[in-house]
This record gives sequence, structure tokens and C-alpha cells, in this order.
Amino acid sequence: MKKYGFGVDIGGTTCKIGLFETTGKLLEKWEIPTDTQEEGKNILPDVAASLSQKMKEKGIPQGEVEGIGIGIPGPVEANGVVPVCVNLGWKDMDVPKEMQSLMEGLPVKAGNDANVAALGEMWQGGGKGCKSLVMVTLGTGVGGGIIVHGQIVAGANGAGGEIGHITVNPHESIPCNCGRKGCLEQYASATGITRLAKEWLAQGQGESLLDQAGEVSAKSVFDAYKQQDKAAQEIVGKFARILGNALSNIACVTDPEVFVIGGGVSKAGAPLLEAVEVAYQEAAFSSCAGAKFALASLGNDAGIYGGVKMVLE
Amino acid sequence: MKKYGFGVDIGGTTCKIGLFETTGKLLEKWEIPTDTQEEGKNILPDVAASLSQKMKEKGIPQGEVEGIGIGIPGPVEANGVVPVCVNLGWKDMDVPKEMQSLMEGLPVKAGNDANVAALGEMWQGGGKGCKSLVMVTLGTGVGGGIIVHGQIVAGANGAGGEIGHITVNPHESIPCNCGRKGCLEQYASATGITRLAKEWLAQGQGESLLDQAGEVSAKSVFDAYKQQDKAAQEIVGKFARILGNALSNIACVTDPEVFVIGGGVSKAGAPLLEAVEVAYQEAAFSSCAGAKFALASLGNDAGIYGGVKMVLE
Repeated sequence: MKKYGFGVDIGGTTCKIGLFETTGKLLEKWEIPTDTQEEGKNILPDVAASLSQKMKEKGIPQGEVEGIGIGIPGPVEANGVVPVCVNLGWKDMDVPKEMQSLMEGLPVKAGNDANVAALGEMWQGGGKGCKSLVMVTLGTGVGGGIIVHGQIVAGANGAGGEIGHITVNPHESIPCNCGRKGCLEQYASATGITRLAKEWLAQGQGESLLDQAGEVSAKSVFDAYKQQDKAAQEIVGKFARILGNALSNIACVTDPEVFVIGGGVSKAGAPLLEAVEVAYQEAAFSSCAGAKFALASLGNDAGIYGGVKMVLE
Repeated sequence: MKKYGFGVDIGGTTCKIGLFETTGKLLEKWEIPTDTQEEGKNILPDVAASLSQKMKEKGIPQGEVEGIGIGIPGPVEANGVVPVCVNLGWKDMDVPKEMQSLMEGLPVKAGNDANVAALGEMWQGGGKGCKSLVMVTLGTGVGGGIIVHGQIVAGANGAGGEIGHITVNPHESIPCNCGRKGCLEQYASATGITRLAKEWLAQGQGESLLDQAGEVSAKSVFDAYKQQDKAAQEIVGKFARILGNALSNIACVTDPEVFVIGGGVSKAGAPLLEAVEVAYQEAAFSSCAGAKFALASLGNDAGIYGGVKMVLE
């Protein structure tokens, strides 16, 4: 094992880059803008220039770098090829091949950003010490990443871990962004929780702190929940039941050691985690009921941690 | 790679044993009774004696045997230890350790029988050529096995692939064998299909071939379905929708290349496969909608094929 590795998390506006020791220690992190002009043809050269510059600055020779692992905001095939990435303008981009030719042959791997973040949380975050994990990212949507035998489950079509699109309510009338109806994402994302709250409040079932909070949001719901607000308890209860049921079904597939909950909504912290864990335990198949629950702990750095971990295997 | 390997599928009444070439060719198969007396303490010695006898008979030296892979009818930890197996009377049985000491140190692996059968179907059966697969066994119950990166997903508690206990109907009033309510197994097993049929016929919605068929069964339902019987079409349609929806949710977790359908109910063949595939495609997240569907092709031999495959990795 060489001494250093790079993790890169390419987003639609910035690329996050981390220089790591292969022990897992993050030495330095920085960002560069993502240039999506001209079908994103400058993105990888820009990243490569930034990595080379850093190696020069730190006096790190090529021979001391284990490799470069890159997270991409879209589906990535198991070999690192990106068929289409709308956010970056890419089509049929062979990320390992392109990047390797820019970096004098250093080993390069690429994966979907949600899956890579899951690997990061397994390595140095909320799932540390585990080899099988389900990462649940509660943000504007619901993302996920599945780890089995310590490795990312990319899936045959790059759709491994697309748990936000598990159908949880076949009777839903409003469509999800994916065009189908009743996806987990419609209830368990920040947007989904806000919607559950508005529906509850519209029923006028009594006073609530949420009536005075101005614009209702996932954050205001969890703030009121922490103050034992009755309406917030009902709303969080419904959210937790839907998510807990979905996770209990996932457990019947890969039976993970731990569920790691991340994303903006997870900033609600321990009370959210506890509500979801209790709902999970009520719904779970008995063998799986003891799965651990943990909050993601790497925040926005999960992608660079997971990136470098990809090239350490 | 050595020339030979053994696959063993231990059941509650008989142990199936196969002698294979490591190329995948089944040379010979036979059965011995499973002696469950005295907490099943004779089971592994009986199997070992049978294997030694066969090696002697064929003149196969120890050095030409790659190993022995064993399927067990219960949960098996990733290291091959069986915490409890009610069917065999075992408690805390370290299968690899015990069997290895009986077979002069030959490599031994053990796995849950449904998972091992899935591996067999991947290697030489309905999923041949694929590295990611979901096996669905429609029998008295609904079993399953998940393969990712060419390997069994045993799960943290040996519950990987327990897809029969995915909750598909939270409003069910009748309990499943597992004690919970609304499991996939309650609708998609032979028992489940029979129940769907009885419920439909009790509504008296018109004449059906099933009214004349005597005792209704999954087989009589599919026989009538093949003759375009209206009631059977409704019943199979409901079965297929429930199963297709559940598989579309599993696809959002591991995104397999192929779903392989086996078990007694799958003897209904192509019409069953087509009904499930169509229902799956209607329900699936777009990226996964192209997953292949295949019938299991190894029948009761899937376990011995998967057994030997375990020791070839």
C-alpha cells in the first residue's frame, strides 16, 4: 500500500477534492469549479491539473499515490463508464481511461456519487467497522447506496441503491419526479415531509407550533417534534412508519449490519434516528430486527472519503 | 484449479450429493438419508463417509478435489457456522470445521440452501453468464437468493434473500407463518395463489373452469389460465402484479441482471414467466425495466451445483 490517495466528488457546480493518507486520514481538501461548457470536456482535465499541482506543491511523487477515485452525479457502469450524465453534459465518458491518460497511468475508479458516499461512511463514517451497509440520504430527494462484502453494489444498470424509487404507496395520485407514483421519495425527502405536514395541517386537527412557524419545512417539523408538538409527532410518526417499512423490506434483500442515515433532513439528529429505528423494529422480519442505525458523520466529505476508498481495494 | 468438487444439499429427510468436474459437469449424483436423531450429530459423518466411499470407488485422490460446498436448510453465517437449524436439530454447528476434520482437511464452505441454489442457477442454470441475480423460489412458501458480484449475499443475520417476507400489503388481517402480516409469501406462494383463487371464486363473478376442477390449487389455476379462463386470468393477474411490484422494489436495491424464477409453482412455465415479467415492467423504475427474466433450469439439482460453485472461488 502506497502512502497517498485522492478522492474526487464531481458535482454540477463544484468538484470537491481530498488528499488522503491511505490510512484514512484526510490531509487536505479543496474545491474547483465544474466547467460544464462544451459537453463538460474540461472537467476531467481541470481536476487532473489540480491534482498534479497539489502533488508538485507537496512534493508527492507519482510512485507514492495509490490512485484516484471519482464520484459522479449520475449512473456509472461497473467499469467506470458513464453512459449519460445530464448534470455534467457527458455522454459515453470512460472516466478511468480519460483520467488515467491525464495522470500518467495512475489507477482510476469511478462510481455513482451516492454509492461512493456510502462507501465513505462505511470506511470512516457512521458505518465504520461494518462490511454491509445501507446508506439512506434524505435530502431534496431520497438517495441511497448499498454496500455488500465491503463493496459498492452498482447494479446492472447503475441503479443499485436507488431506494428513493421503491414504491411504498400504490394508491398515490400525484406523480414522482421519475414519472411513477408512490415512490419513497414522495414521503421521506425534505419535500415529502413538508407535504405530509401541509396535508396534516390542512385537516385542522388542533393547534400546532407549526401554525405559527411561517413556511412549513422538514426543519420546522422536526423543531416542533423536539418540543413534543402533537401535530409534529403525527407527521414524524407517519414519515418514520413509511421509511421504517421500506427499510425493513430492504433488509429482506441484503440484510445489512447497519443503516446509515444522512442528507440535510438527518440534521434533525438523534430524535429522527430513534423514530425511524423504532418504526423499523416494529416492521422488520425477526432475524433482521437487530440491525444497527447510525447517523452519517462525514457530511459533504463522504464522497471524497468513498472515492479514495474505491482505489484502496 | 483441481479436477473435481463435491456439492451437498442437506435436507430434512435426504442429503443430495453431486460429484462434479470443476468445469461444471455433473458426473454423478446420489442421495443418502438425513439422520436427524441425537441433534443431527450423524449427518456430517454420514455425508463424509459417502464422499470418501465415492472417491475410493472412482479412484479419485484427495489432491484432485477442490473442496466440498454444503447447502443447509436454515440460516448460515458468512463463516459457515449454523447458529440454529430446527430441521436438522443443530445448534452452533461449525460446518466447515467439522466437515474438514472428517475429510482430512479438504476445503469446506457452507451456505443457506436457497442462497446456494441461486448460485447454482447463476453458474449453470437460468442465470448462466450473469454475475448479479435474484432467484425467486415459488413453492409452499416464497424463498429467495441474492447474488452480487458473482457471490451469495448471506446478510449480517443470514437473512439475505428472505424476499418472501417483504411486506406487500400492510392492510392484511391474516398472519403469515413469520407472525407478521402482509408478506409476499402470503400471495405469491402455491398456498397464496390457492388463497387468491378461493377468494375470487367465493365472490361468484361468473363461471370458471376452476369451479369444476375439484380442489383448487396453484396448478389448477395455471392450467385454467392457459385455457384463457377469465377467473384464472384475474387471479394470475393479481398474483403477477403483487410479485412484479415486489421484484421492481428489489431492483431498486441491487439492480440485478436477471430474475430467475424457480420452485414448484414455476412448473407453469412460460405463461407464468411472461405474466410476471409484464407486471414487473409496468411497475419498474425506468433504469431497471430491462432486467431479464428466466425460469430456473436445474430443478432439485440447483443446490448441489451451487454447493460446488462455492468452493471454486
